[in-house]
Amino acid sequence: MNQKYKLASFFLYKIMTPPLLLRVLQGELVDRPPVWLMRQAGRYLPEYQVLKQKYDFFTRVQTPALACAITMQPIKIIHPDAAIIFSDILVVPQAMGMVVEMHEGKGPLLPNPITSVKDINQLNTTEASIKLSYVYEALTLTRKELDKNLTLIGFAGAPWTVFCYMIEGKGSKTFDRAKSFCYQERDRAHQLLQKITQVTIEYLTAQIKAGADCVQLFDSWAGLLDKKDFLEFSLPYMNQIVTAIKPFAPIILFAKGVIHSLSELCDTKATALGIDWTITPQQARNITRHNIILQGNYDPAKLFQDQKNIQQDIKTMIQEFGKDRYIANLGHGLLPQTPVDNVRCFVDTVKNFGSMTK
Amino acid sequence: MNQKYKLASFFLYKIMTPPLLLRVLQGELVDRPPVWLMRQAGRYLPEYQVLKQKYDFFTRVQTPALACAITMQPIKIIHPDAAIIFSDILVVPQAMGMVVEMHEGKGPLLPNPITSVKDINQLNTTEASIKLSYVYEALTLTRKELDKNLTLIGFAGAPWTVFCYMIEGKGSKTFDRAKSFCYQERDRAHQLLQKITQVTIEYLTAQIKAGADCVQLFDSWAGLLDKKDFLEFSLPYMNQIVTAIKPFAPIILFAKGVIHSLSELCDTKATALGIDWTITPQQARNITRHNIILQGNYDPAKLFQDQKNIQQDIKTMIQEFGKDRYIANLGHGLLPQTPVDNVRCFVDTVKNFGSMTK
Repeated sequence: MNQKYKLASFFLYKIMTPPLLLRVLQGELVDRPPVWLMRQAGRYLPEYQVLKQKYDFFTRVQTPALACAITMQPIKIIHPDAAIIFSDILVVPQAMGMVVEMHEGKGPLLPNPITSVKDINQLNTTEASIKLSYVYEALTLTRKELDKNLTLIGFAGAPWTVFCYMIEGKGSKTFDRAKSFCYQERDRAHQLLQKITQVTIEYLTAQIKAGADCVQLFDSWAGLLDKKDFLEFSLPYMNQIVTAIKPFAPIILFAKGVIHSLSELCDTKATALGIDWTITPQQARNITRHNIILQGNYDPAKLFQDQKNIQQDIKTMIQEFGKDRYIANLGHGLLPQTPVDNVRCFVDTVKNFGSMTK
Repeated sequence: MNQKYKLASFFLYKIMTPPLLLRVLQGELVDRPPVWLMRQAGRYLPEYQVLKQKYDFFTRVQTPALACAITMQPIKIIHPDAAIIFSDILVVPQAMGMVVEMHEGKGPLLPNPITSVKDINQLNTTEASIKLSYVYEALTLTRKELDKNLTLIGFAGAPWTVFCYMIEGKGSKTFDRAKSFCYQERDRAHQLLQKITQVTIEYLTAQIKAGADCVQLFDSWAGLLDKKDFLEFSLPYMNQIVTAIKPFAPIILFAKGVIHSLSELCDTKATALGIDWTITPQQARNITRHNIILQGNYDPAKLFQDQKNIQQDIKTMIQEFGKDRYIANLGHGLLPQTPVDNVRCFVDTVKNFGSMTK
């Protein structure tokens, strides 16, 4: 009887307990940090290269079964605690009516970037999130296939970063066209940022309904702005998104290169903040007053090291962040040539953290 | 008699007083900050474009009369307090024996990057600084032509940044090949960084002998490294250069994107630190404990604004840094399409600062 009860409790616990990443995002203290890697689904995996040879970029992104298969690849190969849906931040401007092309090795191209108020007015905001149904289908498929102990992450670009591409029309080191637009056409810039924000809220809400357990917002180009401009052109829009999304699921903000505003990012009430390696764990903990869950911040280039060094680095990183209120990750996406074994070493080292320190 | 004495004193003062920028670098308190702009000689000037049509990049750099003429162009057009010699940080690897090509709109290419210890051993360190005599000639010419009230700045790339190009062979967003080299071949990396450092010390010393009143070290890619790596692969070499050069002339360190180590940069005893706009003036003053001269940090993209806004921004920037122990500049180089009138507006606003606040 007692034995049966114990067994039943164990299975009930297994069924009822949310996966590790979600537990951390809910504020629970855990034995070891959860681990996943930005860009874990994609280019460094030979299994991904096979699909890349067969299908072009938007076929891979827009075919739910393919997007699901790609999302699941790292789960089977490197065993992280979460899957992040395979997609791209530029599906949003595409759904708003812009032409988006992906050229191998050259990055994205939007051949007709926004230049006028007419262009902004022509953007489709009412149906954009509906057009992204292929993402929702991919999430639903993946959530069914994914083990219940693992978390499924949805994502979108932050409005500022999406805006950068919509104005600049392509990648850039400085995005001066996008920035000039803000300075010369301030009201128009805000009008466009607001439109992107509206679509992004609908998009992320639908991702959660479709099966995403939590979402991450990528502000990859936040670091181009000084503090004043970041507080004007980026943060308020991320804030709107956090306010709208947080009642439905945890939300992680990853704004690259904005140490100057880490304290203000903390004030958004996002569930967690992603940080890059240009700040030390201690500095980040101090600026955020030990007040928020942090995610990051290993330099992906360091995955080219010997595994011994990687293991040592990861152990140190966890100790510096502290094992609680922490999600082990990189400070930016995995690099194309990264050895798969080293990525697995990263994941395994985090997973063994509890046992290593015992 | 009294009148004559006053007049004589005035002329003596005019003759004896170093130019404004040098006075600030010597610790003197002044009426208004000195002003110059990174990349003030070059691409945004129509007068430069004329010479660019006629002569290829290395002809412009390696012909002293041409380099001098280009250096002098902004002096006559925008009237800053200092001239910075027209050159390139990649003349150092070129003088060490590497092939360096400049492709219009594509950036630099080093078709035979360093891959082995043999490549490192083959680098010419003994004659490299002699091969750079065209830079010294250009400095001597320019110092003769330049008004005595203006400062002539020499420069070099910081060893880490030069190393990045020597290993990677071209520009890159992430320089992962250069970083991987550090992680996989640590000793070789240090060996190469030491060679670059040795040549750079000889090069900057010769620049000062030839007429440079002060020098700046550009660590454009410092921000790619985390703090631990910056302290291992970049800072010690800049430190060696500061120690060797400071007895002869003031030295400004401009390391982009390393807020994490601003305090350690301060400890190098460099004369001044250049900073970019990803940190606010107040944050920079706090981290450096109000203990060093700061230079920067206007976002060059903001020069696309209306002049009214530029004027307001510059006034605020000077007030935030404080008019003393401060050199007004950008946080990075001038962008190609910047309107010349706006650049002049930047310079004029700084020059009028004293009178504006009176």
